Amino acid sequence: MNTSVWIDEYQKNSRFGLKGKLLLKKTSIFQEIIVIENEEYGKALMLDGCWMTSSKDEKYYHECLVHPALSSLKKISNILIIGGGDGGTARECLKYPEVSNIDLVEIDKEVIKVSKEFLKEIGGNAWNDNRLSIYINDGVKWVETMKSNFYDVIFIDCSDPSELSNLLFSENFYKQCKRILTKKGILATQSESPESFKKIHINILKALKNTFKVSKTMYSFVPIYPSGIWSWTFASDNESDFLKPNCKKILEIEKQCEIWNINYQDGAFKMMPNKISQEINSL
Amino acid sequence: MNTSVWIDEYQKNSRFGLKGKLLLKKTSIFQEIIVIENEEYGKALMLDGCWMTSSKDEKYYHECLVHPALSSLKKISNILIIGGGDGGTARECLKYPEVSNIDLVEIDKEVIKVSKEFLKEIGGNAWNDNRLSIYINDGVKWVETMKSNFYDVIFIDCSDPSELSNLLFSENFYKQCKRILTKKGILATQSESPESFKKIHINILKALKNTFKVSKTMYSFVPIYPSGIWSWTFASDNESDFLKPNCKKILEIEKQCEIWNINYQDGAFKMMPNKISQEINSL
Repeated sequence: MNTSVWIDEYQKNSRFGLKGKLLLKKTSIFQEIIVIENEEYGKALMLDGCWMTSSKDEKYYHECLVHPALSSLKKISNILIIGGGDGGTARECLKYPEVSNIDLVEIDKEVIKVSKEFLKEIGGNAWNDNRLSIYINDGVKWVETMKSNFYDVIFIDCSDPSELSNLLFSENFYKQCKRILTKKGILATQSESPESFKKIHINILKALKNTFKVSKTMYSFVPIYPSGIWSWTFASDNESDFLKPNCKKILEIEKQCEIWNINYQDGAFKMMPNKISQEINSL
Repeated sequence: MNTSVWIDEYQKNSRFGLKGKLLLKKTSIFQEIIVIENEEYGKALMLDGCWMTSSKDEKYYHECLVHPALSSLKKISNILIIGGGDGGTARECLKYPEVSNIDLVEIDKEVIKVSKEFLKEIGGNAWNDNRLSIYINDGVKWVETMKSNFYDVIFIDCSDPSELSNLLFSENFYKQCKRILTKKGILATQSESPESFKKIHINILKALKNTFKVSKTMYSFVPIYPSGIWSWTFASDNESDFLKPNCKKILEIEKQCEIWNINYQDGAFKMMPNKISQEINSL
């Protein structure tokens, strides 16, 4: 049972593969789930042929999704995470003592089950924190039926657009998110690769710009994702102190991070390649 | 002859592969050379199993190596490129009209031949520019025998450490580079991935810090390189205006770039992950 296999994510005519022991391969009612143990990347999760996360590189992704939003807000009582079944986003949120409630809405209960069993390091203590409530539900429906002005932050921590997640990238969905956000609230979403998914990336930025008064995109690294370049976009109707670091808590949070610090964040918001700016400005 | 093949770069237990038409596979006296034509990355060059460059993503690499140094210097008459056989670094340098002489010292004449034949877009007009002189020679020997205080900038544009290139990463070599640089001159080197080649990366930074009065590392993206995260380090004995943009020329150069602009550069210099800063500070 110690035989090593290669598992590759194919993106058109390129592929990124990890070699290791196959810990799990099963099909839930939504998707195929694979977990492999790799020497350099640790335990890695693949959903429907796409690498989602790995225990060794996940901090590049989760720290960039969470901290720009949370380190800038004074009130962060209620948080919604759509997707995020590996637990990494919840774990980062729980570093802030003022968070009193996180609703994690994941469509596939198998992803949570598998993450708790095989990727324990990612969720860590979050799974046992009583501030975290888990709902197995469709994120789009959850947002549509939620009361207005409730969440201080919404994180969209989902897989690439597909039949399962397409609606999470639509302007209509962003409008519903805006409705359930508090007045100063922030929507934070992963916004794909400007190289491997350029069209989708630009569409997300455009839709958020059309929906919110202010939005801003940061670029950083996720080694196991296609092209290695990834982006996260933040949007709000509160222009005055949007993403401005709330200095009291920054130092404390930085100390607990492997990648992110406030200087890194400042840099990441400047890393839009010329060719992407040009396309966006020509819209 | 239109059959597609997969060509992968293996890095321990991960691999990144491109599928396409194999345009060339040969062995020079120094290394194995492969050129493949891929739909998304264009024509891609592999040396001894490692992806070197591709016509569609090369600007991420070459613009970051060249412009931080050249956009900050007032005098950039004489430039040395060690390696750089694909012509991309020379092409970026030649965007500056004040450059009067570039010595490109490449050890493997086959790399230049192959680049001129198969990767024409990368070198472009640089190959015909009479400011560019090509020498087929060992970069280490070239530097050792060159007269002092001659070059305004030295670019080390080489492959990952191996039998062929090991010496290009040594403190002794950096000392010789310093000797042949002008007083305000800058050494610019690719400095590997902080993820896939962490130890080498940190050693380069350490050696440059020991050799020069000032050094600074930027982090950005190269999709076809291991982990997608890459770094470039700049070093000089001129502290006062080190890497400070010389504003007259910036706008003109930015317009000719696909990725780089001065804001992007400013961001990239802030992107050192916490875990790397911690290791460096503990040295």
